[in-house]
Amino acid sequence: MKLALIGVGLIGGSFARAALSAGAVTSVAGFDEDAQALSAAFRLGAITSIADSAAAAVRQADLVMLAVPVGAMAAVMEAIVPHLRADAIVTDVGSTKASVVAAARAELGTHFVRFVPGHPIAGRERPGIESSEPGLFEGKLFIATPVAETDRGATELVEGLWRRLGARVERMDARDHDRVFAAVSHLPHLLAFALVAQIAGEDDADRKLSRAGAGFRDFTRIAASSPRMWRDVCIANREALAVELRGYRALLGELQAALEAGDGDAVEAVFRAAAECRRTHAPRLDAE
Amino acid sequence: MKLALIGVGLIGGSFARAALSAGAVTSVAGFDEDAQALSAAFRLGAITSIADSAAAAVRQADLVMLAVPVGAMAAVMEAIVPHLRADAIVTDVGSTKASVVAAARAELGTHFVRFVPGHPIAGRERPGIESSEPGLFEGKLFIATPVAETDRGATELVEGLWRRLGARVERMDARDHDRVFAAVSHLPHLLAFALVAQIAGEDDADRKLSRAGAGFRDFTRIAASSPRMWRDVCIANREALAVELRGYRALLGELQAALEAGDGDAVEAVFRAAAECRRTHAPRLDAE
Repeated sequence: MKLALIGVGLIGGSFARAALSAGAVTSVAGFDEDAQALSAAFRLGAITSIADSAAAAVRQADLVMLAVPVGAMAAVMEAIVPHLRADAIVTDVGSTKASVVAAARAELGTHFVRFVPGHPIAGRERPGIESSEPGLFEGKLFIATPVAETDRGATELVEGLWRRLGARVERMDARDHDRVFAAVSHLPHLLAFALVAQIAGEDDADRKLSRAGAGFRDFTRIAASSPRMWRDVCIANREALAVELRGYRALLGELQAALEAGDGDAVEAVFRAAAECRRTHAPRLDAE
Repeated sequence: MKLALIGVGLIGGSFARAALSAGAVTSVAGFDEDAQALSAAFRLGAITSIADSAAAAVRQADLVMLAVPVGAMAAVMEAIVPHLRADAIVTDVGSTKASVVAAARAELGTHFVRFVPGHPIAGRERPGIESSEPGLFEGKLFIATPVAETDRGATELVEGLWRRLGARVERMDARDHDRVFAAVSHLPHLLAFALVAQIAGEDDADRKLSRAGAGFRDFTRIAASSPRMWRDVCIANREALAVELRGYRALLGELQAALEAGDGDAVEAVFRAAAECRRTHAPRLDAE
């Protein structure tokens, strides 16, 4: 199977390296707007040929993997659609799904039935091809969000491929996926970015950060993620994210009032509910 | 040197185990209101004798370590002060310092000059004596916040002891300490507790949490910390914490407005400032 990879970042690069190393694909034609990343991907063996454009990359492909920021998906789809083989399957790894499905429906024409929207729940805090690794998806969850029209064979082929890379596979409705990940992924990223940005904006940032310990390190690990990718995720999923953020801000307002009133019991009730829940889920989370 | 340990949790237990194993103390008389924790501490070798009360624990002690939640410090000081040897040195490991210094000034009478306020920047997400380990402080920062009246010899003895346990030692003003840790420790804990509490309070909590990945795991690790301890910290340091929380809520309000307006550039500007800062500090943080 010939793979075309559009976007050679952490996830796309890890996917291609894993697929090549599992023997699931025989070649990878890669394209990225970042020429430096593209040659690094070739050097690291994530792609077997460098294409001049997204259109050129997809011409021979049995499977096209779109691994660009979700805000760039529509433009990439528009660029490749005239050049896709009639039987080509297209898939993606975007962190939001409803917006990508909508872009695919608008841009891919007759190819839309062979578009399999997907999201591997895996990552590392440092973005980029240099951080890619073929084992990134082992034991991780891959979520497919096919729609009613999606060709069953195409979905099964994509899911089977992720299974060969060691992932567990689950299907979800795209909107449902977006609501869940607004809560457990997009909001935490926004909160971590905001905390570090707040400290970074203060005069004594270095003084503060030089005293930070392991708790701060872990809490802010995701704040080193790609600003461009997460901007796109937050904007693409802004409806569901705005609901979560509004609820969270209301809870922070209550905590502020409790703090200022010296109401330790109210503060502790929130902390206790959290600690019980977090400890209950620790065994599964620690396996991630 | 004979140590009395009041409070046999993660930090107190790790301190006593480390001090015994380094040969820095010859005996540890322990007391805790939790009888089960107290016998676990004896079983784990963190204490060499079990006392019936805080007063009984301190009678022979050269050094008294207060390792109770900061909200309990004043009551413990009041209980032990009539029983302290005239030359006993008292120290603590509370996460806030101005409130502990104020309690010591009010409660310790003539012993106040030999009270050395301290804070080791070390922890693990699971509280309790079972999580204690003698190597917990190796390479970690210990901050002493003596006041003008504090006996120099007492401060040097306590600092020297922490150095023997492998810690780096730094001195800070207590209020300054509290401002710094409001930003890099107390606020992140409150935010992580609040996020998990919000999800835990929803009907589909398990569905959401079963999809959470490594980013969520790291971001919420501190939400498994002791609710009682962190309630006390937040209340004791509520003035500085309220300032940080207010600033943070204002930034979240701006992000919500940018999201709802679809203003990706405004969102990305915040994310970019954070990512640059977090990556710059990654080498030191990763050494924690």
